[in-house]
Amino acid sequence: MQALGRHLLCEYHGCDRELLNRTDVIRTELVAAVTLSGATPLHEVVHAFSPHGVTGVVVIAESHFAIHTWPEYGFAAVDLFTCGDSVDPYRAFEHLRSALRAQSHSVVEIRRGLLPGSGPMPHKPG
Amino acid sequence: MQALGRHLLCEYHGCDRELLNRTDVIRTELVAAVTLSGATPLHEVVHAFSPHGVTGVVVIAESHFAIHTWPEYGFAAVDLFTCGDSVDPYRAFEHLRSALRAQSHSVVEIRRGLLPGSGPMPHKPG
Repeated sequence: MQALGRHLLCEYHGCDRELLNRTDVIRTELVAAVTLSGATPLHEVVHAFSPHGVTGVVVIAESHFAIHTWPEYGFAAVDLFTCGDSVDPYRAFEHLRSALRAQSHSVVEIRRGLLPGSGPMPHKPG
Repeated sequence: MQALGRHLLCEYHGCDRELLNRTDVIRTELVAAVTLSGATPLHEVVHAFSPHGVTGVVVIAESHFAIHTWPEYGFAAVDLFTCGDSVDPYRAFEHLRSALRAQSHSVVEIRRGLLPGSGPMPHKPG
């Protein structure tokens, strides 16, 4: 069965709470994660919540990366949704783990869009 | 165990291929899904790929909704990530199922950010 996409659901616990609340850091590290993974960024949105919490999304040519932070819990939830085989989302996962100084983490990989057949995995056109 | 977020991973097969390739339709139906679920839209990005395929993301006060379409396969992958208990993401799921004319679908609900303790589920501040 071929899959159109792969999706990493990443959770980071025990992160640096100050970093999780800084929109500049979240933007910089999320874009760095995109670049390190080999993905192509197209659009980015970063939103700061009051009194705390940041959401960041980067639409990439290969789908999207997203992060939501809860500084009050030292927690961040990250989604790395990619298609094609030119991107290594685990590089993004590792980068964010380090950048956010997570003390523990989990990651689950889910294949999205499982289709019958065994042909080559299609690429999302740029 | 309380969870900070809930995340529906939705897959729609056998959709109307023409609709899946129309950025205006994807934008309209994704925003309608946000509204119907009771979420608060903050930012939206819709990107058209060549020769086909659309990505749409709406950052909401309660996290994000995202859609990626593969018109050539009649397939769409949707993520409905929400926090707080004022949003019903299944209304968004049902709306998109109908709007995209999906012939079949799957949905998996994942709890994000499971934390120890049994206090009230925190809301993401607006």
